[in-house]
Amino acid sequence: MNPFDGSNPREALEQVAALLRCSPTSAEVASYLDKHDQLRHLREDFLVPKIADLPPSDLTLVDGSAECIYLVGNSLGLQPKKARKYLEEELDKWAKTGVHGHTEGSRPWAWAENNIEELMAKVVGAKAEEVALMNGLTVNLHLLMLSFYKPTAARHKILLEHKAFPSDHYAVESQIRLRGFDPQQSMLLVSPRQGEHTLRTEDILETIEKEGDAVAVVMLSGVQYYTGQLFDMAAIAEAGHRKGCYVGFDCAHAAGNVELKLHDWGVDFACWCSYKYLNSGAGGLAGAFIHEKHRDDIRPALLGWWGHDLKTRFQMTNVLELQPGVSGFRLSNQPILLVCPLQASLEVFNKTSMRALRRKSLLLTGYLEYLIQHYYTEDPTQPLKPHVRILTPSDPQQRGCQLSLSFSIPIRKVFQELEKRGVACDMREPSVLRIAPVPLYNTFGDVHRFVETLGSALAASQSQQ
Amino acid sequence: MNPFDGSNPREALEQVAALLRCSPTSAEVASYLDKHDQLRHLREDFLVPKIADLPPSDLTLVDGSAECIYLVGNSLGLQPKKARKYLEEELDKWAKTGVHGHTEGSRPWAWAENNIEELMAKVVGAKAEEVALMNGLTVNLHLLMLSFYKPTAARHKILLEHKAFPSDHYAVESQIRLRGFDPQQSMLLVSPRQGEHTLRTEDILETIEKEGDAVAVVMLSGVQYYTGQLFDMAAIAEAGHRKGCYVGFDCAHAAGNVELKLHDWGVDFACWCSYKYLNSGAGGLAGAFIHEKHRDDIRPALLGWWGHDLKTRFQMTNVLELQPGVSGFRLSNQPILLVCPLQASLEVFNKTSMRALRRKSLLLTGYLEYLIQHYYTEDPTQPLKPHVRILTPSDPQQRGCQLSLSFSIPIRKVFQELEKRGVACDMREPSVLRIAPVPLYNTFGDVHRFVETLGSALAASQSQQ
Ligand SMILES: Cc1ncc(COP(=O)(O)O)c(C=O)c1O
Ligand SMILES: Cc1ncc(COP(=O)(O)O)c(C=O)c1O
Repeated sequence: MNPFDGSNPREALEQVAALLRCSPTSAEVASYLDKHDQLRHLREDFLVPKIADLPPSDLTLVDGSAECIYLVGNSLGLQPKKARKYLEEELDKWAKTGVHGHTEGSRPWAWAENNIEELMAKVVGAKAEEVALMNGLTVNLHLLMLSFYKPTAARHKILLEHKAFPSDHYAVESQIRLRGFDPQQSMLLVSPRQGEHTLRTEDILETIEKEGDAVAVVMLSGVQYYTGQLFDMAAIAEAGHRKGCYVGFDCAHAAGNVELKLHDWGVDFACWCSYKYLNSGAGGLAGAFIHEKHRDDIRPALLGWWGHDLKTRFQMTNVLELQPGVSGFRLSNQPILLVCPLQASLEVFNKTSMRALRRKSLLLTGYLEYLIQHYYTEDPTQPLKPHVRILTPSDPQQRGCQLSLSFSIPIRKVFQELEKRGVACDMREPSVLRIAPVPLYNTFGDVHRFVETLGSALAASQSQQ
Repeated sequence: MNPFDGSNPREALEQVAALLRCSPTSAEVASYLDKHDQLRHLREDFLVPKIADLPPSDLTLVDGSAECIYLVGNSLGLQPKKARKYLEEELDKWAKTGVHGHTEGSRPWAWAENNIEELMAKVVGAKAEEVALMNGLTVNLHLLMLSFYKPTAARHKILLEHKAFPSDHYAVESQIRLRGFDPQQSMLLVSPRQGEHTLRTEDILETIEKEGDAVAVVMLSGVQYYTGQLFDMAAIAEAGHRKGCYVGFDCAHAAGNVELKLHDWGVDFACWCSYKYLNSGAGGLAGAFIHEKHRDDIRPALLGWWGHDLKTRFQMTNVLELQPGVSGFRLSNQPILLVCPLQASLEVFNKTSMRALRRKSLLLTGYLEYLIQHYYTEDPTQPLKPHVRILTPSDPQQRGCQLSLSFSIPIRKVFQELEKRGVACDMREPSVLRIAPVPLYNTFGDVHRFVETLGSALAASQSQQ
C-alpha cells in the first residue's frame, strides 16, 4: 500500500491506522505520513515562522519556539530561503556596477524575467513562449481582456461567477463599459443552485450551451478563492469553444496549487498572481498566458516598448517590431527585485513536478477533511456542540488544497483563539475559515496540530461566553 | 558672491577662478565648488561603484580603487544606502510573520505605497491625493490615456513629439487604434525646425494654437530623453487648455531632475518611472498624477479592487466604492519589495528640496557645458581635431541636468575608452553621448574628471586609428 498513490484518502488513512494499530485520528498517522512523504524535504527550502514571532501569539498558551501552523499559503506563500540570496546578489550588482547590471551577471535586468518564464511555464502547463511574467494580476487580466473581449451586438456577454473575486468582477464590469455595453445586460453570472455553495460543472456547461451564442468570453477562476472549488477547465474550454467563445481563467488560486494544463486544454488566455501558492512575496510579479494558437491572430490592444523584439528593442527607431503572442503584450520593463524571489520559488517547484505535488495534496487535504469530519460533523445528539460544514466540494477532483470550513457559530472569537495558539489561517466573517495545507511545505503534522488546536480554540471561545 | 545662487554659471565659474587665481578649467575650481556645495553630504546616502567593479574598466589605465565617474543617473540611479536595510526589514517580516506582514510593522504591505506617496508628491510638486505609486510607466500612461483620450470626429488628435520615447510613441499609436481612429490621421507630431535638434517652445505653442481644436490630448515629455530638453510645461498646459485639450506629461526624465509643479501648472495628468533620477532600482515602482480638479470628472476606464476605498476594500462585496481621483486608477496590490528602495530614495530627496537641488544642478551642468565648450568647440584652425556640439538647449531654463553631446567623429571607440577609464555614461550611435551630472550625488569633481578623461579617451581612440 502506498498512501501517496493518489487514490482514496480515507481508505489510505484507515490502512495506515490499521498498520500502526492506532486510530486514524492519532498523531502517529501524521508522523507516519510525514516520514513517508517524498516531498517533505521541500519544506526546508522555506522559512517557516516561529509561533513566538507571530504578532497575535499568546505564549502563556503555546510553546513559542515551535514552528507556527501556517495554513494560509492561499493568501501569502512562505518565503523561499533563496529569495534573500538572490535579492542580495542583485543589490550587490546594483551597488557595484550601477547601470551595467542591465546586461551583466546571471540575471541581466533587461531580460531577467525571460530567464524564469520557462520555469513558470512548467508550473502552469504551458510552453515558455505562451507565458509572460509582468505587472500585477488585475493589470494582466485587463490587458488580455482588451484583446479577447471585442463585443458585437450579437455576442457581447462575459460569463463569470456570481461571486467572482472583487477585482475580477470590477474588471469585467469596466471592460464591458469601455466597449459601450451595459454590465446589466452583458455580465452573465453563474450561481450555485439554491442551498448549494459551489457551482455544478453541469450547470456551467449548460449555461454555455444555452447562452453561448451571445457570450464573447467565458472568464472563470481556475480555483474559486472563497470556496476552494476547482473548475473543470478542460470541459469548460471545450464547451466554450464549441459555441465560439473565448475561454480564459484567473488562476490566482490555481497556479502552484493544482496541476494545470493550460496548453493541452486549449485555454485561450489566463493570468495569475505569484504571491499565493507561488511564494514570491506580497505584490509579486504576475503571469499571463496566451495559447500559441493565437500567436498571430490575437494582437495586443495596448502597446509598449517591452513588446518590441528584444534584439532591436534598444535601437529606438519608433517602428515597432512586435513580438508574437503574449510577449507582444509586455509594456514596461520589469522589476529585477520581483524576479529574484519568484525565481527562488520556481526553482523549488522545478525540483519536483505539479503532478507529484498534487498527489501529496490530495492526501494532505483529504486528511484535513477526514479529521474535520470526524470531529465536527453535526451530531443531533449534541445540539450545542459547534459543527462544521465543508463548503469545498468533497470530490478531490473538484478542489485544490484549500478547504473552506463553515462553522455553526460565529467564528471571530474562535479565530482569535486559533491565532493565539500559533495558527495562521484566513477568516471570512461571519463563520468561515479557509484552511490551505500547501503540499510544497505543509506537513501532515501541521494538519493534525491544526485540528487539535481548533479543539482548544473552540473550547476556549465557548468557556468565555 | 555665491556661485550656487542659480544665476549665470559661466560668470560664477570665472569669479571662482579669479578668487582662486587659477584657470576656470583647473581642478581647483571643482574642489572649491564641492567644498562649498551644501548638498554634498547627500552623496553619502548612495552607493557609488568603484572603478574596479565596473565590468569594462581597464585597471592598467586607471586606479581601480577610486569611485567611478557615474554620469548615467538618467538611465539608472545609484542605490540609496537604506534600500538594503528596508528590504531586509521586509524580508525579515515576511520570514518571521508570513501573512501578518500585510497589516503589521512600519510598512504594512496592504498600504505600503500609500505611506510614501506624500514624499513622492513633494518631489513632483503635487498634493499627496494627486499621486499614485503603481505599475510601470507605460502601464500608467495607458491607464491615464484611456480616461483622458476620448476622441470624437472633430477632436481626435494626440499631439506628441516627432521623436518621442518609443514606448510613448507605441502607446499613443495603440490608444488611437483602440478608439477606432487612424494614427496617420490622429498623431500630430511636432518636430524641430530644419537643422535644429530641439523643439522651440514657440513652435509647440503655435501648433497648439493652430491645430488645438482637433487635439484631444497634448502628450509630451517633461524632459526629452534624447536631447535633454526641458519643456515649458506651464506654458504648454496653458496653451492646451485654452484650446480645450487635456495636457499630460511623461516625466520619466523630469521627476527628480528638475523642479516640477504639476499641481500649480494645472497639468491634467502625468506619469513617470522611478529607476532613473528617483533611484529605485531597475523596473521600480512608477508614478501617476491626476490633477485634483479632475477628482470627480475623470473616472478610470479600467477598474480593480485596489481602486476600492481602503476602509472597505477587504469586505469583498463586489460593490465598488471607487476612490476619487488617481487613487481610483489603482488595479493590483503593489509590491512591497519595490516600495522599500523607493522609500529610501525619497527620504533623501526630502532631506532637501527640488528647488535646492535644481540650484545646484544649474551650476553643475553649467560647469560641464563650460568645460566642453572650452575644450571642444569647433576650431577652424584645427580641422582634424574632434569637436563637440551640445544638442541640449544652452538656455538653462530649457534643460535638466543632462547634456547630449554630439561628436564630429563616430563615438563607439571613444565610448569604449571612456568606459575603460571608469566613466559610466550613455552612448547613442553614431555620435552622441548623454551625460547626466545628477545634483543629488554627483560632484563638480566628477564633471572635471569626466572632461579630463574624455581628453584621454579621444587621444587613445585616435592614436589607434
Ligand atoms: C521617456 C520615457 N518614457 C517611457 C519609458 C518606458 O518606461 P517603462 O519601461 O518603465 O514603461 C522610458 C524608459 O526609459 C522613458 O525614458
Ligand atoms: C482570484 C483573484 N483574482 C484577482 C486578485 C487580485 O490580484 P492583484 O491585486 O494581484 O491584481 C486576487 C488576489 O487575491 C485573487 O485571489
